Order: sequence, then structure tokens, then C-alpha cells
Amino acid sequence: MEITFLLIVEIIGTLAFAISGIRLAALKKFDWFGAFIVGLVTAIGGGTIRDLFLSTTPFWMLSYWYLIVTAMALGLVILFKRYLVRLDHTFFIFDTIGLALFVVIGMQKSLDFGFPMWVAIIMGTITGAFGGVLRDILINEEPLIFRKEVYATACLAGGLSYWLISHLGGSIVVQQISCAAIIIIVRVLSVIYNWSLPTLGNDNKDYTNQ
Amino acid sequence: MEITFLLIVEIIGTLAFAISGIRLAALKKFDWFGAFIVGLVTAIGGGTIRDLFLSTTPFWMLSYWYLIVTAMALGLVILFKRYLVRLDHTFFIFDTIGLALFVVIGMQKSLDFGFPMWVAIIMGTITGAFGGVLRDILINEEPLIFRKEVYATACLAGGLSYWLISHLGGSIVVQQISCAAIIIIVRVLSVIYNWSLPTLGNDNKDYTNQ
Amino acid sequence: MEITFLLIVEIIGTLAFAISGIRLAALKKFDWFGAFIVGLVTAIGGGTIRDLFLSTTPFWMLSYWYLIVTAMALGLVILFKRYLVRLDHTFFIFDTIGLALFVVIGMQKSLDFGFPMWVAIIMGTITGAFGGVLRDILINEEPLIFRKEVYATACLAGGLSYWLISHLGGSIVVQQISCAAIIIIVRVLSVIYNWSLPTLGNDNKDYTNQ
Repeated sequence: MEITFLLIVEIIGTLAFAISGIRLAALKKFDWFGAFIVGLVTAIGGGTIRDLFLSTTPFWMLSYWYLIVTAMALGLVILFKRYLVRLDHTFFIFDTIGLALFVVIGMQKSLDFGFPMWVAIIMGTITGAFGGVLRDILINEEPLIFRKEVYATACLAGGLSYWLISHLGGSIVVQQISCAAIIIIVRVLSVIYNWSLPTLGNDNKDYTNQ
Repeated sequence: MEITFLLIVEIIGTLAFAISGIRLAALKKFDWFGAFIVGLVTAIGGGTIRDLFLSTTPFWMLSYWYLIVTAMALGLVILFKRYLVRLDHTFFIFDTIGLALFVVIGMQKSLDFGFPMWVAIIMGTITGAFGGVLRDILINEEPLIFRKEVYATACLAGGLSYWLISHLGGSIVVQQISCAAIIIIVRVLSVIYNWSLPTLGNDNKDYTNQ
Repeated sequence: MEITFLLIVEIIGTLAFAISGIRLAALKKFDWFGAFIVGLVTAIGGGTIRDLFLSTTPFWMLSYWYLIVTAMALGLVILFKRYLVRLDHTFFIFDTIGLALFVVIGMQKSLDFGFPMWVAIIMGTITGAFGGVLRDILINEEPLIFRKEVYATACLAGGLSYWLISHLGGSIVVQQISCAAIIIIVRVLSVIYNWSLPTLGNDNKDYTNQ
């Protein structure tokens, strides 16, 4: 039963990530194929980088439902484009839940492969946040997470709570739930209170020398 | 003898892909080294992504003639730049033949690695089309195949015909020839009749919320 | 003792590469997290691509000091930004020493994995120069090394001297020192005398046809 619940959450997260990519592709006037690829890369890109780093076969090559969910996301955007615009808050919730789950999955997989906790935290953050980086590279924009919102920081905070609970002797389920909860809380609070990280530099000197 | 024929076609395809990358690098005023890298990435990038996904050593690390063909492509563009401009139709033919062959090679290699047909179709499309995506990322442009021409769609159509012939009991050679033929036909027809996929979105709303 | 010396040089090189990335991220007004990632990718990106191509676990997943050095680089840029601008010449020296060491490390690792010398030269160049390419992709700029400075060419020249000394029967240490020396000399001379490679094309024809 828990597996079924996790699967539903993973589908919702994949759908939310894919829709976020497809909506940005729509702004760039990509065709359906391009929008599908951008949606797919947003949804599975982070986990693909993680799996390449873990020297294992990318997860989406073992089950075709990631493709099907992305195709469903494309269909939804094509059919309900106007209405989807008004659902920003709904998508934000799905996207945040998906993010939390992706980080937990990425951390768990890295630990299962025998890597230490600090590698697992990085892999969790990559799983959650780097699909969006690949998306921004594909649509030729500066990666959003490098300039806006406490997105990757939420992943890191969740990862650190996973570590902390593990040190305190909590069970794996408690570690995972606390990790996911911290990510959701930090991300929601950061949007409500408009938190952001300090930025670097505001002078116009040309530092380029490499 | 067939291997020799295939090798010649692969060299022609590699040359055509490399020249397409080098000509775009020339537009960006890249130096010779940059042009060589862009040409090389266009020619071998798709197959490299495929091999990383298949957890195997990239094919071009096992034989240096891909480098030599790319160096030849660079030499040709440097020497005959003015004349090459007039040969667009010739390049289109070479490029299309190379595309068809690359898709067949990518599919066959994935099937040989024990992956199912739907993975092979994706790997074939990646082999044929994603060198161009990497090229466009390197020259800092939005990927062309996401907005113009029925390029990746031709790869998919070829892959589906491979699948269909395989279901109907055709031999591997028939599967491969029909796959290549469909790709060439779809791509040529799409250029002649100016086919394109529908695009997404034409309003100016800012969808960005991730 | 030599290992200690090499380690110090590698730390200095990593620090110099990370600072070069962080300073460019500062120009783009990235936040601290974004700047950290750009610095990290500049420092470890080339070796990561090399390790994926060699089918081995990326080196930075086996020791966390690359993360710590990058965090130190971020701290240095935040604290001493104004003063760092005046240290361009110092950074150039560190950056060049780091480059030379990274190429030698990349070549040695590839040879240890059983690849031939021509693959090792490519892997050395990737180790030294492609962190900067990934950095430029992340900050959405055309890769600098494709248009300016004899950077990758210095790596290639160093790799060729490694090969030559190996053919002439020199010991591995002599091969490595000559490789590093050639890289440093070529890069320093190229900046002093403003060497550059020829560029391709200066007409406005639209070559795009793929």
C-alpha cells in the first residue's frame, strides 16, 4: 500500500515537473516535439545525471511510464492551456511535493549504492533541482535556481535533516518524512516571505580573465 | 562487402554532420579549435549520450577516424568555404543519409545491449538528433530541432517502422532498411512540402513559476 | 612528499578554477548557491566528463575536499571581492598551473585505464578545458575557449610533448613535467604575445540548413 501511495506521489511530481517544462517551452514557441523533450528533461533530467554519476542505467530506461506521464502533461497543456495559467498555486503545491519526493528518492538510491551521506545529499539535490537546470539550458536561459527562490537550498536543508535524524537514531522512514517535510516547509515559507539568498557583486567591472 | 558499404555511408554521414556544425561555428566567428569541437560534437554527440545511457565506453574512444573525418571536415570548410555555400542541396542529402544510418546504428546497438524496442527507438532518435542539440547548446542558440523541420519526428517514424517490421516477422536487414528509408522519405517530403509540427502557445503571459 | 606537493598544487588549481567561475557568476548576479555551483562546475566539470567517458565514478564523489575548497573560494570572493580584482596576474599564474596539473592528471588516469595515448591527450584536454565550457553553458555565454586565447591548444601541445617524450623513452615523471611545462610556457607566451588561432568566416551568409 505504501508503494502505491509513493507511486502516486511520484506520478504527480513527474507530471508537475513536466508541465513546468512544457509551459516554458510554450513561451519559446517550441513545437510539440520540442515541448515534449523539454518537459521530459525537466522531469527526468536530475535523476538521469544522478544515475550517470552512480554508474547505473538511467531509471527511465527501465519503465516507460515516465514517457507516458510526460505525454499526458503535453496533452494537458495543449488542451487546457488557458485554464492552466490560473492554477499556478495548485502547480506550486504539486511541484513542491514532487521536489521533496525526488530528493528523498535520490538520497535513498545513493545510500543504497554504498555512498556516504554527504554524497547522498548532493545526489538528492541534483535529483530534485538539476532537471530544471537542464531545462533552462535547453531553452537557452540562465538557470532560474541560480538567481531566484530558495529552491536548491530547500533540498540541502532537507538533506541535512535526513542526516541529523539518522545521527539521532531515527528510522529510515522518519528520516525520509522529515527530509520531505523540511523541503516543503522551507520552500513554502520562502515563497510566502519572499526569502532569497544574497547575490554576489553589483559593480560593472569585467572580471573575465580565463 | 556490406561492412565496407556501411563504413563509407557512416563516414559520409559523419562528414556531413561535422560540416553542418563547423558552418554554424563559422557564423559565430569561433576559431579553428572551437569550430573543430563544435563539428565533432555535432557528429559524435548523439552517439556519446547514447553510450553513456547504455553504460558503455563512447564509440569514438575506440577508433580515431571520427577525429580524422572531423579534421577533414574542418579542412574542407576552410579551403572551400565559398563553394560549400552553394552545395546546400548536396549536404542535405548527405546529412539525411547520415541521419538515417545513425538512427539504425543507435537502435541496433541498444537492442544488442538487451534493451526493449521502445528504449531502442529513443536511443536511435538520440543518436541521430541530439548531436545537433549539443551543437546548439555550445553555440548558445535555442536548439533548432525544437522549433523547425520534422527532424526528430522522422527519426521516430523510422524507429516505429523498425518496430512494425519486426512485429510482422521481417528480418533484421529488412527492419533496418525500412527504418532508414522511412527517415529519408519523411525528411525529404517534410522539406519539399514544408511540413512542421504545431507549436505551443502564442500569448505573452509569463508562465514562469518554478 | 611528492604526493603532498601534488596535493597542494591540485588544491591551488581547484581554488583558482573555482574562483574564476565564481567571479563570472558574480557578474551575472547569481546568488551564493548559484555562484557555488558555477565555481564547482568550473573546478570539477572537466574531470567529471572525463570520468563519465572512462566509465568510472566521478573523482569528487570519493573525497569531499573539492567541495570544501570551492566553499573557501566562495568565501574568499565574498570577503575580498574588491581586492581580488587587482590580483588578475596572480590568478592567471594559479589558473595556468592548475590547468597544467589537471591535464597531466587526466592523461595519467586515462593511460592507467588502458586507453591509448591519443585518447589520453583528448581526456587531458577535456579535464583541463571543459570545466570552463560547462561554466559558460551554465551562465549562458558562448564558450570563451572557442573564441579567445590559446587555451585548449596549450593542453594539446602539452599532450603531444607527453607523447613525444614517451616515444623517446623518457620516464613517466619526465613526460609529466615536460607536458606541464609546455602547457605553462605556451599559455604564458600566448598571453604575452597575444597569440590566437585563426577564426572561421566573416561573411553574413546564413549557412543554417540542418
